[in-house]
Amino acid sequence: MTTFQHPLDVELTLPPGEQVIATRRDFHRFAELGWCEFRTTSKIIRTLEALGLEVAYGRDVVDGPSRLGLPPDSKLDVEWRRALDQGADPALESALAGGFTGVVATLSTGRPGPILACRFDIDANSVQEAEGTEHRPSREGFASVNPGVHHNCGHDGHTAIGLTLARLLVEDYAHLGGEIRLIFQPAEEGLRGGRAMVAAGVLDDVDHLIGAHIGVQARETGTVIAGYDRLLDSNKFDVHFSGRNAHAGISPELGNNALLAAVVATQNLLAISRHGAGETRVNVGVLQGGEARNSIPAHAILKGEVRGEDREVGRYLMQRADDIIANAAGMHRVEVAIEEVGRSEGADSSLALRETVQQLAREVPGVNQVVTSAEFKASDDVAAMMQTVQSNGGQAVYMGLGAALSGPHHSPDFDFDEACLGLGVHLFDKVIRSTLGAST
Amino acid sequence: MTTFQHPLDVELTLPPGEQVIATRRDFHRFAELGWCEFRTTSKIIRTLEALGLEVAYGRDVVDGPSRLGLPPDSKLDVEWRRALDQGADPALESALAGGFTGVVATLSTGRPGPILACRFDIDANSVQEAEGTEHRPSREGFASVNPGVHHNCGHDGHTAIGLTLARLLVEDYAHLGGEIRLIFQPAEEGLRGGRAMVAAGVLDDVDHLIGAHIGVQARETGTVIAGYDRLLDSNKFDVHFSGRNAHAGISPELGNNALLAAVVATQNLLAISRHGAGETRVNVGVLQGGEARNSIPAHAILKGEVRGEDREVGRYLMQRADDIIANAAGMHRVEVAIEEVGRSEGADSSLALRETVQQLAREVPGVNQVVTSAEFKASDDVAAMMQTVQSNGGQAVYMGLGAALSGPHHSPDFDFDEACLGLGVHLFDKVIRSTLGAST
Amino acid sequence: MTTFQHPLDVELTLPPGEQVIATRRDFHRFAELGWCEFRTTSKIIRTLEALGLEVAYGRDVVDGPSRLGLPPDSKLDVEWRRALDQGADPALESALAGGFTGVVATLSTGRPGPILACRFDIDANSVQEAEGTEHRPSREGFASVNPGVHHNCGHDGHTAIGLTLARLLVEDYAHLGGEIRLIFQPAEEGLRGGRAMVAAGVLDDVDHLIGAHIGVQARETGTVIAGYDRLLDSNKFDVHFSGRNAHAGISPELGNNALLAAVVATQNLLAISRHGAGETRVNVGVLQGGEARNSIPAHAILKGEVRGEDREVGRYLMQRADDIIANAAGMHRVEVAIEEVGRSEGADSSLALRETVQQLAREVPGVNQVVTSAEFKASDDVAAMMQTVQSNGGQAVYMGLGAALSGPHHSPDFDFDEACLGLGVHLFDKVIRSTLGAST
Amino acid sequence: MTTFQHPLDVELTLPPGEQVIATRRDFHRFAELGWCEFRTTSKIIRTLEALGLEVAYGRDVVDGPSRLGLPPDSKLDVEWRRALDQGADPALESALAGGFTGVVATLSTGRPGPILACRFDIDANSVQEAEGTEHRPSREGFASVNPGVHHNCGHDGHTAIGLTLARLLVEDYAHLGGEIRLIFQPAEEGLRGGRAMVAAGVLDDVDHLIGAHIGVQARETGTVIAGYDRLLDSNKFDVHFSGRNAHAGISPELGNNALLAAVVATQNLLAISRHGAGETRVNVGVLQGGEARNSIPAHAILKGEVRGEDREVGRYLMQRADDIIANAAGMHRVEVAIEEVGRSEGADSSLALRETVQQLAREVPGVNQVVTSAEFKASDDVAAMMQTVQSNGGQAVYMGLGAALSGPHHSPDFDFDEACLGLGVHLFDKVIRSTLGAST
Repeated sequence: MTTFQHPLDVELTLPPGEQVIATRRDFHRFAELGWCEFRTTSKIIRTLEALGLEVAYGRDVVDGPSRLGLPPDSKLDVEWRRALDQGADPALESALAGGFTGVVATLSTGRPGPILACRFDIDANSVQEAEGTEHRPSREGFASVNPGVHHNCGHDGHTAIGLTLARLLVEDYAHLGGEIRLIFQPAEEGLRGGRAMVAAGVLDDVDHLIGAHIGVQARETGTVIAGYDRLLDSNKFDVHFSGRNAHAGISPELGNNALLAAVVATQNLLAISRHGAGETRVNVGVLQGGEARNSIPAHAILKGEVRGEDREVGRYLMQRADDIIANAAGMHRVEVAIEEVGRSEGADSSLALRETVQQLAREVPGVNQVVTSAEFKASDDVAAMMQTVQSNGGQAVYMGLGAALSGPHHSPDFDFDEACLGLGVHLFDKVIRSTLGAST
Repeated sequence: MTTFQHPLDVELTLPPGEQVIATRRDFHRFAELGWCEFRTTSKIIRTLEALGLEVAYGRDVVDGPSRLGLPPDSKLDVEWRRALDQGADPALESALAGGFTGVVATLSTGRPGPILACRFDIDANSVQEAEGTEHRPSREGFASVNPGVHHNCGHDGHTAIGLTLARLLVEDYAHLGGEIRLIFQPAEEGLRGGRAMVAAGVLDDVDHLIGAHIGVQARETGTVIAGYDRLLDSNKFDVHFSGRNAHAGISPELGNNALLAAVVATQNLLAISRHGAGETRVNVGVLQGGEARNSIPAHAILKGEVRGEDREVGRYLMQRADDIIANAAGMHRVEVAIEEVGRSEGADSSLALRETVQQLAREVPGVNQVVTSAEFKASDDVAAMMQTVQSNGGQAVYMGLGAALSGPHHSPDFDFDEACLGLGVHLFDKVIRSTLGAST
Repeated sequence: MTTFQHPLDVELTLPPGEQVIATRRDFHRFAELGWCEFRTTSKIIRTLEALGLEVAYGRDVVDGPSRLGLPPDSKLDVEWRRALDQGADPALESALAGGFTGVVATLSTGRPGPILACRFDIDANSVQEAEGTEHRPSREGFASVNPGVHHNCGHDGHTAIGLTLARLLVEDYAHLGGEIRLIFQPAEEGLRGGRAMVAAGVLDDVDHLIGAHIGVQARETGTVIAGYDRLLDSNKFDVHFSGRNAHAGISPELGNNALLAAVVATQNLLAISRHGAGETRVNVGVLQGGEARNSIPAHAILKGEVRGEDREVGRYLMQRADDIIANAAGMHRVEVAIEEVGRSEGADSSLALRETVQQLAREVPGVNQVVTSAEFKASDDVAAMMQTVQSNGGQAVYMGLGAALSGPHHSPDFDFDEACLGLGVHLFDKVIRSTLGAST
Repeated sequence: MTTFQHPLDVELTLPPGEQVIATRRDFHRFAELGWCEFRTTSKIIRTLEALGLEVAYGRDVVDGPSRLGLPPDSKLDVEWRRALDQGADPALESALAGGFTGVVATLSTGRPGPILACRFDIDANSVQEAEGTEHRPSREGFASVNPGVHHNCGHDGHTAIGLTLARLLVEDYAHLGGEIRLIFQPAEEGLRGGRAMVAAGVLDDVDHLIGAHIGVQARETGTVIAGYDRLLDSNKFDVHFSGRNAHAGISPELGNNALLAAVVATQNLLAISRHGAGETRVNVGVLQGGEARNSIPAHAILKGEVRGEDREVGRYLMQRADDIIANAAGMHRVEVAIEEVGRSEGADSSLALRETVQQLAREVPGVNQVVTSAEFKASDDVAAMMQTVQSNGGQAVYMGLGAALSGPHHSPDFDFDEACLGLGVHLFDKVIRSTLGAST
């Protein structure tokens, strides 16, 4: 085993309860967007290797053609170079560059038993983090140094739990059987990475899948949701409108206004009717259009998403979105193309595994409330993995780690009570030992 | 006088009819946006100095605080560095950097007579120029090398006319009296530069002002419009919407959707009622909003303009725009700020000077149709200068140089028949000699 | 007891299973809108009196000032006169005219026991019923004779169940104790009548409240939902926009466009963000604006509603609606007034009574599936009554009577499988006998 | 000649200057909509007959199939019955009923000479007239007695001028040659009647056509515009949207929202881009949609119009409108049908006849300003007649009668200074005598 030279390996010398916080803060500081988690992936690899685990990455864990919403090459290049500046290992370039982020570590006990996988997502969001002393990451010096990128969904915490959990398992797994896979998934935001890992086979033969999210539907530290239900079905799409410029004073009638088409699409997408069969969500998160103040706009791009309580509702939403977008373009005589950039069906936690979690969570010190289940009310790329495992006859559970939040998920002032991290490590550890310990 | 070392000074050795085309193509190739015409200004200065004219620039011809729509410092820096790479004279940094573009050259005959000023605008637009062999600048190798910047309003031609005219006047002005000022104005697009030159005093004491535009309301080469009327009153504005992010799935109701406010503003701005008293124009040329697909958008910026046939109509439009913008923000509970970034009142050509042009234009070889007047149907920053001269008792005329066009103004495939350039030089020359020749 | 002379009293001579269908078809044929159910109320009164029940109506059962969404007097007059033509008893004019519809019948056993109330709503909707042989009411001759009024929510069936149930109870109640109140509620559509009956005291002292709806969330005849949950919180409102006319050609700028304000309000109301805490609904059901094609519109009226999963969500929706409406008006410089015309909070069925229903439903012949509970996904004025009873310590249940439908509720081709009616009578009867039979 | 028995014939006994005002007020009081001017037409016929003129009406002057925007039969019936109550002659039923309003009177001098036609439009608008003492018609007792119908475009004045002019001509035409036709045109509002009279041949062989409008572009009494130019090209259209109802709470997704389609169409129609070639106007004057508050709307109707400076601009507007309407429907999956209900091309006054008017107007007592020409900035059905005459080689002029107004055209508080009426009679009289007197 090579010695781990990363400047950050000091974290592994801390007590686990401190390690998980230090590691989380490091990832928070160097937040990276989906498919660009180069420094993040590099650190995960080197840490897991330092622990002596069998580590796979690059094309071995991510199926290239199945990646959705990949940034353009120029963006991937810029991000790779920044990652190098921030500590990524240059030796990993051939494996990671071009958007092959994500890691799978395997701890095989050598004893008979089931395969249990834990899944942690690792990417951040394209929102500028809040400044000022009211925002703890800024006040305490671990706010994101990368402009416009912010870990405001807690994936930094998820990743830190995963690395700390790895250490605990390595230190003591003599009583376990079977095999543990630790899956670090890229590009969860936008539902872009899950299917690519499934397609690479990392969920093959998995009997139990465990994942967790911080702070969703549980905003008090010490609360655990044994298993989320109703992860929402979702489609993510980019829409490209293409019209024709014209001088806005002399001959505006010669223009075909692509921005206006996008504006009309936006208003009507948000007005898609609710559905009697369940929850719906619609968002146009980004719209950029036009070239110059005094020219009829010839180009616009719209980044949108729909979410529904199940596949039927999801299909309804996307059909309505298609109608609206096509006609918004036709209305203003512009060309339009819809590009799918992310997708997830819904999912529910498996009943038996959820009950196991429910019992064990009560034994974790610091946990003072265990909720049987809660509606997730959002989408998560873990659904693709859950469905894979469940359809193969396995069980999957997505747990909720309650945490006090300083702002809602995806907002600039999002932060969470780090006390949830230690609880999370402990909970994963307990469920693993309970599930894989029976073989002895 | 120092020898002009610019690699482009070969242009001055060509016959004037070839010079004007070569110069135009050079400016076209290195198109620069308003307040960033550093290489353009540098070349104008050095060329005029080479001709032996008295040349003023920098803060002497542009009043800093009167500049509208100045780009941020970071943008000005980047543009200055690019201009250096493209041939700007580093010695001019202290004078030009930070957005002090524009030049005034003076040829004083030393004999009594009126002051006559000619005005040429020098900036390009933020539109990506067309590619492919159908577009002559691409086919013949003088398409813009600067991404997203295109001389698609003919100002490259205007500037080339000015420099060629300077050479003709320098070579032969023995029979003229009074004084000639050649004004090269920056940042005409967006109506941002005219007032800053007026405020710097460059129009003081001017008795006659002559300007020209290529291809407006005259799309046949050989046509001259003796004087435009009804240059439109116009206001240019940026609107900044500021709301609040939230997770679009978990708690969308916590967001205040700045993009939606901008979308509603856009639709309603375009629907401002026409006015019985005359022409109106409304454009939202650029809209950019949102941070991430799965987050309720917290920020949006809208770049808009209104134009009216006169000040009353213009005031009506801006009042309606203010109502709409404020209420679009209030509707979706977001903060809003409106920033004025450009402004021009309307103008009409002076009758007597227009008649002079009308007579002289018929004598220019190649001119086969002279139109008394035409409605400009657009705005032009020259209006601020025309008003200044007219209100001081002087006369101003804005002439039209007919030209076949390959696409409408401000469109990616705009180009013009360069035969209009020689006619333009000739026309200016004739009007100047007629006006200033009376003293002999 | 006077002899009941109504031409329709033949219904009482039919077997109950035929009576309920004949009665339903009679009400269907003479469908009446809320607060205008004059003929309907007249028939209910005379039928119940013919059965020997103690009958109260008019101001005794409806509190005048608490009525919401009352039609104008002129409309009430026209409707009263039509009702007379269609068989209403002229002797009831002083009691009913002016919008005092609705009836309460009491059967007091004279024996000790609780008070049990059954609630039936009686009004129709303002939709034109479908024509043609595909629509059974048309094919079989009982389609609505009143233009633009259609029983397309099943209240005709509810009312028929109530009258048939009355007959069964009167014929055999020797073994029951306590008191039975049969409440026939007007103006349920739009949530306009429930509070007025509560305010008149008709729910006072009620220990058990039972209601039922046909076909909601249960589209197979033979299915019974023991108790609905999540009746939606709802606000109904009319919005009056008032601007200024102007000639659309000569001086459109002088107009203040009330229709445009209403249009903007509509688009933005439908785009109110979903809520993470539960279901939302928004509808603009009617919009009428403008006076003449060639005049800027000066008036518009919008009839809207919002529904939310609970009071918090409902309050959010109405606050957003208020913001949007006020700013849509301000945007186009028109006056606006919002009038509340209907309102209901949410409600859930009481657990114990729901379990009673669940058990008894299985014993009803023809019932082949009993569902414990279902989300109602709509609003119902019964909620005001349920809350009143529950807050007084009583129990309330709102049952679902499954029925095959020929079209969705509120659509022109709505009709239901009348086999559900006999099941409904049987179910009510069973629950009453079980609840009040304990005294024997 | 039969004696004229109409109760209003007292008007003919007044001095002309008083007659014209009394007659105008009578028409104002009994304002009637286009194709329903039954009482108006009846009075015109009987008055002209009383004067001894040759009078044609009904199918002789209006080509049935060419009528645009005809109200439904039921409306025509109701209006005919009201007209009878208000003094229409029952004997005219067979001629007028069903929408055959309008009159042509001929005064043939028996001497050689040209044919000169005068055109007067006779219909009112569907706007509710203002009440209160600030509005002179109300204060002085001649406000419209017909609810929702208001002479707010001055056609009552035009008609009164025509009848008074008839009397003057009958009293003294010994010195004239040729023939005079007085054309009273129905259904000018909405551009629905002009073509039907042209198609019936009433403009055949006309050498000179004279018309006038009160108060357009001239708001001071005593001003005359010798001839309007740029009557706008216009299209009037009704749009019928047809979708599907659904319960707005239970299953809103089953609805196809016709009202929303109409709303989207409205917003986008108003945002059709201005045109560089000239004036544009767009109005949605009426929108009515939806059936019930709690049902997704299944029907909507939109009454719209576009106007352009010439046929090219007009065609552009209508093509854009077609695109928008079709796609607004497609966007929300509703059926749509566009019905043309009015149409006029543009027109300009003939130069020579305009000069004649200009000279003669100066001689009319009370006229203190004569404007050569003005842009009409509106559409007028007279254009169809002007084009017919001009294309046959004749001349046509549309004159402006300046008048102080109490409110803009088409607004509820529109009224005009009646002093313009006498001037108008005098001006027509002068032009006729000048034109037809040359034969003596």
